[in-house]
Amino acid sequence: MAAPRAAFRSILRAFGMLRRVLCTVLLMGALPSLAEASQGHISVVLLGATGDLAKKYLWQGLFQLYIDQVSSGHSFTFHGAALTDLEPGQKLMFDVLKKLACPPDESPNRCAVLKDQFLKLSQYHQLKTAENYTALNREIEMLLHQEGLKEAGRIFYFSVPPFAYTEIARHINSSCRPPPGAWLRVVLEKPFGHDLESAQQMAAELMSFFREEEMYRVDHYLGKQAVAHILPFRDQNRQFLDPIWNRHHVERVEIVLKEIVDAKVIKLILSIRLQYSLEDALASFAWALLKLACQYPGRTSFYEQYGVIRDVLQNHLTEALMFLTMELPGNLSKAEEVLQCKLQALQSLRGLEKQSVVVGQYQAYASHVQEELQKGQDYVSTTPTFAGVLVHSDSLRWEGVPFLLTSGKALDERVGYVRVLFKNRAYCTQSEALRDAGHSQCKPKQIVFYIGHGALNTPAVLVSRNLFRPIMPKSSWREVVGQPDLHVFGQLLSDYYMYSPVKERDAYSVLISNIYHGRKDFFITTENLLASWAFWTPLLNSISHQAPRLYPGGVENQHFLDFEMVSGELAFTVAEPVELLNPSGPMPSDYKTIQSKFRQSPLVSAWSEVLISQLASDVEKTASRAVARSGQFHLALSGGSSPVALFQRLARHHYNFPWRHTHLWLVDERCVPLTDPESNFFSLHNHLLQNIRVPYFNVHPMPVHLHQRLCVEEDGGPELYAKEIVALVANASFDLVLLGVGTDGHTASLFPHSENGLEGTQAVVLTESPVKPHQRMSLSLPLINKAQQVFVLVMGKGKHDITTQISRVGHEPRKWPISGVNPSSGQLVWYVDYEALLG
Amino acid sequence: MAAPRAAFRSILRAFGMLRRVLCTVLLMGALPSLAEASQGHISVVLLGATGDLAKKYLWQGLFQLYIDQVSSGHSFTFHGAALTDLEPGQKLMFDVLKKLACPPDESPNRCAVLKDQFLKLSQYHQLKTAENYTALNREIEMLLHQEGLKEAGRIFYFSVPPFAYTEIARHINSSCRPPPGAWLRVVLEKPFGHDLESAQQMAAELMSFFREEEMYRVDHYLGKQAVAHILPFRDQNRQFLDPIWNRHHVERVEIVLKEIVDAKVIKLILSIRLQYSLEDALASFAWALLKLACQYPGRTSFYEQYGVIRDVLQNHLTEALMFLTMELPGNLSKAEEVLQCKLQALQSLRGLEKQSVVVGQYQAYASHVQEELQKGQDYVSTTPTFAGVLVHSDSLRWEGVPFLLTSGKALDERVGYVRVLFKNRAYCTQSEALRDAGHSQCKPKQIVFYIGHGALNTPAVLVSRNLFRPIMPKSSWREVVGQPDLHVFGQLLSDYYMYSPVKERDAYSVLISNIYHGRKDFFITTENLLASWAFWTPLLNSISHQAPRLYPGGVENQHFLDFEMVSGELAFTVAEPVELLNPSGPMPSDYKTIQSKFRQSPLVSAWSEVLISQLASDVEKTASRAVARSGQFHLALSGGSSPVALFQRLARHHYNFPWRHTHLWLVDERCVPLTDPESNFFSLHNHLLQNIRVPYFNVHPMPVHLHQRLCVEEDGGPELYAKEIVALVANASFDLVLLGVGTDGHTASLFPHSENGLEGTQAVVLTESPVKPHQRMSLSLPLINKAQQVFVLVMGKGKHDITTQISRVGHEPRKWPISGVNPSSGQLVWYVDYEALLG
Repeated sequence: MAAPRAAFRSILRAFGMLRRVLCTVLLMGALPSLAEASQGHISVVLLGATGDLAKKYLWQGLFQLYIDQVSSGHSFTFHGAALTDLEPGQKLMFDVLKKLACPPDESPNRCAVLKDQFLKLSQYHQLKTAENYTALNREIEMLLHQEGLKEAGRIFYFSVPPFAYTEIARHINSSCRPPPGAWLRVVLEKPFGHDLESAQQMAAELMSFFREEEMYRVDHYLGKQAVAHILPFRDQNRQFLDPIWNRHHVERVEIVLKEIVDAKVIKLILSIRLQYSLEDALASFAWALLKLACQYPGRTSFYEQYGVIRDVLQNHLTEALMFLTMELPGNLSKAEEVLQCKLQALQSLRGLEKQSVVVGQYQAYASHVQEELQKGQDYVSTTPTFAGVLVHSDSLRWEGVPFLLTSGKALDERVGYVRVLFKNRAYCTQSEALRDAGHSQCKPKQIVFYIGHGALNTPAVLVSRNLFRPIMPKSSWREVVGQPDLHVFGQLLSDYYMYSPVKERDAYSVLISNIYHGRKDFFITTENLLASWAFWTPLLNSISHQAPRLYPGGVENQHFLDFEMVSGELAFTVAEPVELLNPSGPMPSDYKTIQSKFRQSPLVSAWSEVLISQLASDVEKTASRAVARSGQFHLALSGGSSPVALFQRLARHHYNFPWRHTHLWLVDERCVPLTDPESNFFSLHNHLLQNIRVPYFNVHPMPVHLHQRLCVEEDGGPELYAKEIVALVANASFDLVLLGVGTDGHTASLFPHSENGLEGTQAVVLTESPVKPHQRMSLSLPLINKAQQVFVLVMGKGKHDITTQISRVGHEPRKWPISGVNPSSGQLVWYVDYEALLG
Repeated sequence: MAAPRAAFRSILRAFGMLRRVLCTVLLMGALPSLAEASQGHISVVLLGATGDLAKKYLWQGLFQLYIDQVSSGHSFTFHGAALTDLEPGQKLMFDVLKKLACPPDESPNRCAVLKDQFLKLSQYHQLKTAENYTALNREIEMLLHQEGLKEAGRIFYFSVPPFAYTEIARHINSSCRPPPGAWLRVVLEKPFGHDLESAQQMAAELMSFFREEEMYRVDHYLGKQAVAHILPFRDQNRQFLDPIWNRHHVERVEIVLKEIVDAKVIKLILSIRLQYSLEDALASFAWALLKLACQYPGRTSFYEQYGVIRDVLQNHLTEALMFLTMELPGNLSKAEEVLQCKLQALQSLRGLEKQSVVVGQYQAYASHVQEELQKGQDYVSTTPTFAGVLVHSDSLRWEGVPFLLTSGKALDERVGYVRVLFKNRAYCTQSEALRDAGHSQCKPKQIVFYIGHGALNTPAVLVSRNLFRPIMPKSSWREVVGQPDLHVFGQLLSDYYMYSPVKERDAYSVLISNIYHGRKDFFITTENLLASWAFWTPLLNSISHQAPRLYPGGVENQHFLDFEMVSGELAFTVAEPVELLNPSGPMPSDYKTIQSKFRQSPLVSAWSEVLISQLASDVEKTASRAVARSGQFHLALSGGSSPVALFQRLARHHYNFPWRHTHLWLVDERCVPLTDPESNFFSLHNHLLQNIRVPYFNVHPMPVHLHQRLCVEEDGGPELYAKEIVALVANASFDLVLLGVGTDGHTASLFPHSENGLEGTQAVVLTESPVKPHQRMSLSLPLINKAQQVFVLVMGKGKHDITTQISRVGHEPRKWPISGVNPSSGQLVWYVDYEALLG
């Protein structure tokens, strides 16, 4: 049997390692004595020890950890692990270890000694079966027991593809947990799911093995020095930033990661871990299955499943955004507070719409995909390789400030930065020629966290000299001059205070140090992860079939990927020269609104967009006339989805609308509390009221909720509303009533065969709807027919049948309540879109 | 008797002139025959014909009018008039006329002929007595009668000091009106009053002599070509401007008039007309009296009464502002519509506060004034010679856009411009080095109406090339290149489309042409004038005793007059190096808030400003804690003036306030409609609600107005409010109640010896106030004492006595209701400012 033999071998190896731990500790003069090492022993297990990520960054990061912490009082052992057999694995791993570089800020002598020790403290393990894990655990325990070392904790670094997580996690949980009193930290690499659902599923699995505080999800951007310094910078410069770090002072924020490479060279971490899979996992039968299941057959085709938003925006750029927008906790060293504030910031982001984004795809991408996936020329990929996203926060601090997140492949330069541009609030009385360049308040004011590459080619923090001289920790950041004549972000470099790191550290070194220090705030918690996916998933779904703009790549892109904000939406600045994908039919704007008659009244018809814009403009005209005539405009609005487009149009495009003099009334209401999402008023509130300034006194929700109960007859809600109308609206004649039509011919909440409201003297009535919520309050037909103007809005294919029907019937309000709309001395106008009119 | 002789002389002269009119008409081949002249005759009377304004601009303008309109079908005579006797006056005037220049765009031959005619059509009159006016009228009538010329109209141009207006106006009205069918146009020069009251008085006087349509008040800025083109530019470029001419796209607007000269050279028009007074009016006994009455003894001392705001901002800059902000009428040629839109724009300006302005005075000014007014060194002038004003419009189109109006003397350059800077809404994906300079969307976008002087030294219209190529009328504006490397407004001149006038016209030529054409929209109507004074007068009053910042003058000003917008207010950017005027005592911020006890409860005390900021911050802390605990914050607010400062502070400085989760309740209310300015809710609405975003559902005004009647007991308002509280507030225990104290010791609307509310079980009560409005609704003491926190705010010297009093009394709520505030399980904190505490 293999197990006892393996166990025996393990024990022998553990003894060997033990000897080395002791030697190290005893030999090094400058290093801790055994007594000092009493803080305990830390075992680091690197899973995927021979993969590219390990080769390139992780071993180096662990070596850096050892250099930094050898005198900390902890002792260490480093366990590389992979699926490969012991001997070849050992060889592969030690080939890497021998090549470990000494950091430039370390003395060569000390480094040589430390490197020698580090190699002695490192060991390769094959970790494939349950027994392997048990054996590893036994080795660690034995080592500690033999030497009487207290165990401080264990780090398991998962540098393996996510499909391997569950199995490894199960093994660790069942066999490799440290004893009580020592901690377990498992370090996970992205991707953490593909959307909210998959992320939830993955999180649930992991949480069946590990506690939240045991998991360290890596976003290596949080280890980039410039990104990692955002919060400390905000903290240390509170005196300068407190007054200006808000919507009143910040003009916009840009969070940018541009790449020159294309998707063939997909992001390092993914590619390297993919490579792990390809090389190392060959040993495992699982691989072939997983390969099929996960559909990761190559690089471009991996990217094809992923795209730039999942690859960069959902994680790296979102994390940087959080560091900028979150409220600063009182004490940055309290990870729990930091994480809480970050989560709040994430949750206060406004939901993204399709219009919040522009996407592109470099032209060669399609052929790469076709090739790799062996698809024909007719295979169309909609995977974006470029995206610009406009993000808004609904926090009072940031409301209205545009955050532009941008990333793409095959662009003209490689650069990453987070740029906060402040508003120019100054007027400089002196002529331009006489102004002092550096400090003039009329020059741009900005703070840039420069992640790296680009023109500066170093991580940096830039602060415009006309802002303030920042407080920077001298131990880690130093002021530099750079090339003063270099133009960056529209200014000369000499116009900034510029700082770069005293020691440039790779992101993984920073993160490994943070894992060691238990700084959970540098990692992605489950809540944080799921909140981020909750934010991004609806956008990803909504654009999954959207054709991205094709771009040539590199410097040839010219202005082709420039984009701008228009009415809260994003659009490319330069019009598309040819319709490259999905050539669509003529645009709505190609059609004029047509004017005709419908049921003997004027009809306005057009594609929905044009129709809404015409309607909005007619509503404004009516409003202005009413205000000019009587100083007031009484507008009664219906619920439903069609008016929402009208509300949005009015809020965004009608600056001259006399809202101050407008009274808003409801045509009908569902008997639910006003704060219920089903409430018509709630929709009106969200889509219109929030964005305009109608005096509180002019807003008249229907009293469906009196004495804490809903539409109870004794409460006399309809009578109350009728009284209010009579008191404020001259002759109870609204200036304008906006109605819709239901597929059953109902209008307002007057349904076919309704007992109330179709005739009689009551102005406001309670009615019953055939669909839930059944109870309704509604203006009556007689009241509606007293109005000066009635506009009926009908939109969508679903309304085609009823539109056809009512075009034929006469005055039959009991059968078709809408047919009873016939203002006695006012005007009726029909707004019907082509879909409803023509089907 | 002089009268018959004068009459006789007049008749002879009229015959002479008539001959000349006829000669002209008959002699000129290219000019109209008598038949063509049948459109009628126009008599132009220039009062102050020998003054400097007439010499420098008006005669030239009239000559230009003649050149332009000689073929129009109208015939003309030009009557110069002054107080001087006939012969010397005649000589003075014709000395001016002989020097009239030919416009560069006119052929010398034609011009020479026309000049000769113009001189023949011109005549001098002494206009001093009533008889003089009658004689003038007789001459005009005789001329017309003799020749059978139809009279088209008469223009009276008042180039005289305003104190002479009334008398002249009376004479014209009684003796010089044209017959029915012909028009009268009187042209008036500023100043049109000194403030709203004097302007109203002056307007009322003028309106007793002239109808509104007869008066042409000149603001010569409306004749500046660049200013006059603002409206046509907006009209002709509607297609480009419609989407961007609003708050969503405009970043800011600067309207600037900088001068190098100091106040000794006061503005030309004033100085010249002053000169008229000095020279010409010597003939009049009235002058000596008027000189005393008007206190216009010299130039600087004239300015001393006036200052830069009255001199430039109230008129010229405000007019330019209106052209920018007004809604465009459908048809620009309808003067009435234009004036109406302009008036609306003026009325929608938000009222100015002391904080909306920065003022300066050049250092030498004081000694000039002391000298001229023969005052001692201790005479302190607060007249501003420099002002920057931040203006906001409350129209939906412009809400939030800062309009910066700036003018000053003794600055570094002479220049005038109106600059509209657009927001940069674009993100340019390409690196800076690769961007196409002229058209990059990431370059500044602006439109500048360059009035003249400065670096360009010509009137011009500039439009950034990345905006659009404007449509310009080719007949009057031509595209020019200028010096492409010149830097203007932060860009190269080559980055703009630049246009300058085909013919550069002096403002007066333009205006005289507009008077001739009856273009009232180029002049200031009475309504417009009074609306402008209504806007500026409160500011002028509020800063009349404010010490302006002293500045050295010229290029030495450096950054010293730069200013910036901070929280909706203006402030100089550079701190004042020394306290130059009115060295004031220590500033409030020099004092720390002191914490102590008052009536056994914690006391926070400080100067009012610091106190309010501490209170606001404590309210926010309480709110955040409550929301963290229960998801809601129930805040009950008192009326009165002290909370207003708190409301403003909360709205402007507390971005992180959890308004979305806050419910606002009223502590008390006056029994008036909610829209009454006396209503507590109305004040809360204006100072807080309008500026934050509390959901409609969370706002709880007191139901003082039920069934269209106020606080009627049967309507059960208090019970209704109590029910609402019970339904929404856990245990009816508010998270925070903010109270004040009246000088009689009342709090909320609980007055001494009140029958209701001081004890018992009622949560909300109706009470009686000793002062109007008597009827009140109020939370009861028992309900207030259930709160978690109660803050009592007491501010101002007027509260010192009651503060002292209640610091001594025990629990005597019937006598001092405030002494009954004693939360049973909550906390009470007193916020008392030093004035209330220390007197």
